Amino acid sequence: MKITKTAFSNAIVTNYFDTSLALLKENFSEDQSVIISDSNIIKLYSNALVNRKVIIIEAGENNKTQAAADKIIEELLELDADKQFTIIGLGGGVVTDIAGYVSAIYKRGTKLSLVPTSVLAMTDAAIGGKNGVNFGKYKNMVGTTRQPECIFFDYSFLSTLPKQEWISGFAEIIKHACIKDDDLFEFLERHTLDDFMEDKVLMGQLIERNVAIKYAVVTHDELEKADRFLLNFGHTFGHAIENIYGLPHGYAVSLGMVAAAKISEEINNFHSADVKRISNLLEKYGLPVEMKTDPQAIFALMIKDKKRSGDAVNFVLLNRIGDAVAKKISFKQLQDMQNQIL
Amino acid sequence: MKITKTAFSNAIVTNYFDTSLALLKENFSEDQSVIISDSNIIKLYSNALVNRKVIIIEAGENNKTQAAADKIIEELLELDADKQFTIIGLGGGVVTDIAGYVSAIYKRGTKLSLVPTSVLAMTDAAIGGKNGVNFGKYKNMVGTTRQPECIFFDYSFLSTLPKQEWISGFAEIIKHACIKDDDLFEFLERHTLDDFMEDKVLMGQLIERNVAIKYAVVTHDELEKADRFLLNFGHTFGHAIENIYGLPHGYAVSLGMVAAAKISEEINNFHSADVKRISNLLEKYGLPVEMKTDPQAIFALMIKDKKRSGDAVNFVLLNRIGDAVAKKISFKQLQDMQNQIL
Repeated sequence: MKITKTAFSNAIVTNYFDTSLALLKENFSEDQSVIISDSNIIKLYSNALVNRKVIIIEAGENNKTQAAADKIIEELLELDADKQFTIIGLGGGVVTDIAGYVSAIYKRGTKLSLVPTSVLAMTDAAIGGKNGVNFGKYKNMVGTTRQPECIFFDYSFLSTLPKQEWISGFAEIIKHACIKDDDLFEFLERHTLDDFMEDKVLMGQLIERNVAIKYAVVTHDELEKADRFLLNFGHTFGHAIENIYGLPHGYAVSLGMVAAAKISEEINNFHSADVKRISNLLEKYGLPVEMKTDPQAIFALMIKDKKRSGDAVNFVLLNRIGDAVAKKISFKQLQDMQNQIL
Repeated sequence: MKITKTAFSNAIVTNYFDTSLALLKENFSEDQSVIISDSNIIKLYSNALVNRKVIIIEAGENNKTQAAADKIIEELLELDADKQFTIIGLGGGVVTDIAGYVSAIYKRGTKLSLVPTSVLAMTDAAIGGKNGVNFGKYKNMVGTTRQPECIFFDYSFLSTLPKQEWISGFAEIIKHACIKDDDLFEFLERHTLDDFMEDKVLMGQLIERNVAIKYAVVTHDELEKADRFLLNFGHTFGHAIENIYGLPHGYAVSLGMVAAAKISEEINNFHSADVKRISNLLEKYGLPVEMKTDPQAIFALMIKDKKRSGDAVNFVLLNRIGDAVAKKISFKQLQDMQNQIL
């Protein structure tokens, strides 16, 4: 096990890498904590959670709603949970997002710890304090930014993770490489998905490296006034595609990154050879890079995006692999380019 | 007009005292702001709000719900409101609480300004960043602590305030005197409600003094780990009574303060003569000091109170007028005293 501490302006997060679920027992009394998890996780790990207070939500992005949050709050009241309780979000990104959100608003804030169980949650969703729920068809439209006290990285969860979720998680890993770390990009080019699925040590190193990239960005800009925004690379088109076509998050972000790379080529002097490298790397890790989409439906959703500002959308472009920049692009300009990018 | 700035660890609040609604025009463009208000206020002030984006909620504590927040979020989406929008909460405590809550969670946080229109909102609810909604019969069970950018105190709103709301507001003013300011207590003893209702300058001074008391407490303890907790004087029984009997907030807090003063006499050496002084002052300002209540129903609700901690409740007691202290009291001890205090 390896323990690190990450300091934010108003909080310190303790990270336990290469730990095990058993550590929860030592850290949190049964009386003063409650686990929020989903139906899939509970099926697999019910033995490890004997005697624990557990609130179960239905698995899946469709259940990341205010109604699910309300149901959790109702159960917390039934458990007589007070502000000193620790809410433990145990699951993928849907669970860690909703657990963080409930912890932020229940009684104006309880303690929070996260146990991410998917590649995506370990390398992205559980890191940095963003939480929230969807509102109708709009992703993450309601939520807060608030850091957990602890994050537990137990790599053994990955042994039961379906391959599709491994692939989806690698989209955010490739995103980190694209915007911040060309060495990581080359490292990923030299390996394959199977390498990481088969070698727990190698995967542990990859997770730590991605957590470090994300922390480096978000500790300097917790509330996304500048650099944190770059983490949205691929997410403007990605969120719209995810909502309309119901793709897994990483698959949609993959398509969004290809679109963003092409826009970077059109208006930011990004090399066409590097567009191809990104597209090749995504494909190598099993991610989609082409899909027939309806541009009108996508633009209609983008108008509601959190990244919109007036008639334009703040867009993340690449200067080169490992170096990103945010630029305002008008909806008109995007629509003019739609044949080249979608 | 007088402008002051109040610094919190993560925010600075600008306070405009003795200002007017016209100032909103100068400070907030019609394009980039939206007013949240209630049906009563809008009836009275619709002329001043011409050309403004306005979201109207039903007036009354019963409408301080997640459902009302969801409806506001829906309207914000229809208005294409983005994170740079300022939400302006214009109304009494229900409006400022719900506007603050929506501003905290919509797109993970928009700008927020408050225009309190009642005595209670000007001296208490709008100050200090607590926001939230009720959950079923449990008061303020969901919310956050987050400071507004600006607060506008326009005393002319008080000219249309019903007398019952004046009276309700004075409960929190008397509370401030009880826990922090014996000079203010004597000042209130020397005056009457009519003095303040008739003299806008005197009332303006009283509001400023109460805002200063509340800021002095909350800037040192924004997240209620210590001193801020004293502001809950009268609110443990008060919230329970408010929920069960549907009394206005200040009326219920008045009864709660009498109960807390009696407990202070029983177990904290608080003078019985001072219990009487508090009770007399509350009566002088039109507030109730006696009511037949059902102790069982009250204790059942208190178990769900945010201030509960295990088998005990954190209770605010008085040492003397102007000096309060928090003490844990077990439910059993409270129940043993119920004949003396309720």
